[in-house]
Amino acid sequence: MKYPNGKKPSSSIQQQINNKTSFSNRGMTLEEDINETNNYYLLQNKAVIHKKPTPVQIVKVDYPKRSAAVIKEGYFKQASTTDYNGIYRHRYIDFEAKETKNKTSFPLANIHEHQINHMKSVVDHGGICFLIIRFSSHSETFFLPAMKLFTFWESQNNGGRKSIPYSFMKREGIKIPFKLHERVDYLSVIDQIYF
Amino acid sequence: MKYPNGKKPSSSIQQQINNKTSFSNRGMTLEEDINETNNYYLLQNKAVIHKKPTPVQIVKVDYPKRSAAVIKEGYFKQASTTDYNGIYRHRYIDFEAKETKNKTSFPLANIHEHQINHMKSVVDHGGICFLIIRFSSHSETFFLPAMKLFTFWESQNNGGRKSIPYSFMKREGIKIPFKLHERVDYLSVIDQIYF
Repeated sequence: MKYPNGKKPSSSIQQQINNKTSFSNRGMTLEEDINETNNYYLLQNKAVIHKKPTPVQIVKVDYPKRSAAVIKEGYFKQASTTDYNGIYRHRYIDFEAKETKNKTSFPLANIHEHQINHMKSVVDHGGICFLIIRFSSHSETFFLPAMKLFTFWESQNNGGRKSIPYSFMKREGIKIPFKLHERVDYLSVIDQIYF
Repeated sequence: MKYPNGKKPSSSIQQQINNKTSFSNRGMTLEEDINETNNYYLLQNKAVIHKKPTPVQIVKVDYPKRSAAVIKEGYFKQASTTDYNGIYRHRYIDFEAKETKNKTSFPLANIHEHQINHMKSVVDHGGICFLIIRFSSHSETFFLPAMKLFTFWESQNNGGRKSIPYSFMKREGIKIPFKLHERVDYLSVIDQIYF
């Protein structure tokens, strides 16, 4: 096995490799909805929140004459932070978004230790930090404040369950309304909780 | 010419293509210094600020058995925002960093219209937004609040000069101190100006 950084790809990247079709189906819908929502927020001058580009380790680039540089060899890198951040009502916003087909729980294997560490730092510094989880089988999208995720994470590290039950999300998460333009209107949830 | 998005690469990407050696020499030093500074801030639990990954449009990926997915064709995309953002003392931080070999002025061609628009939105929403400019020939690095950049930008659009004079930076910018770990200690400048 050849990995440019000498490390095995993380489980989520491995998942992409093993099962690209299901991954892209699984990932695109929520991501597209959030991107569209963020574009709408931006157009309405409501918030400035963007998805970060996928981190790529570029190994080889061709520079053909009179045309664009072409990346000829590159590898996916593990993201060291969450996927989305920005600013809303003077507050720093930071979140990760995940979709699961699982009907009864959200597997914590979808989240990485360094992402949890990043989220903890963000909370420490006064940011608004959360997880957006879509249960695609239920067509429901939830907002879970990072603090509630940390509780599950620590419990997992102490031998507890490795997933967040759907029933917990129903009870402790906040269902994100679906609207025409704001397809995942998470700012309406932030308005309720933080302001 | 084949550009995947149907557009000509921007001047800065074209510059990379035309003159990759000088670009990487020119760009790496300040970027490395800022990355090191950000790592140190993170380790000290002082701030959470990261560089965004370079945006890449991925066209073709190989999935070899038993090894990492390989990007076989990709193109550099124009960034739609600035390169760095994060949180410090409960405030949203957003900036762009540029290095110039020019001795007498910083050419505004290094900045793009959509980056200016992004910076204006950030300021509107209450973020701390600025430019870090290094004059490598003088070994000096300056902090320029976004508002002062906007003034030059508007003046340029009205037929004014297309660069920010070094003398202006000396007078109106704030020189960023160089330290052992915080090689570009821009948070010390933020402490002075915003708190």
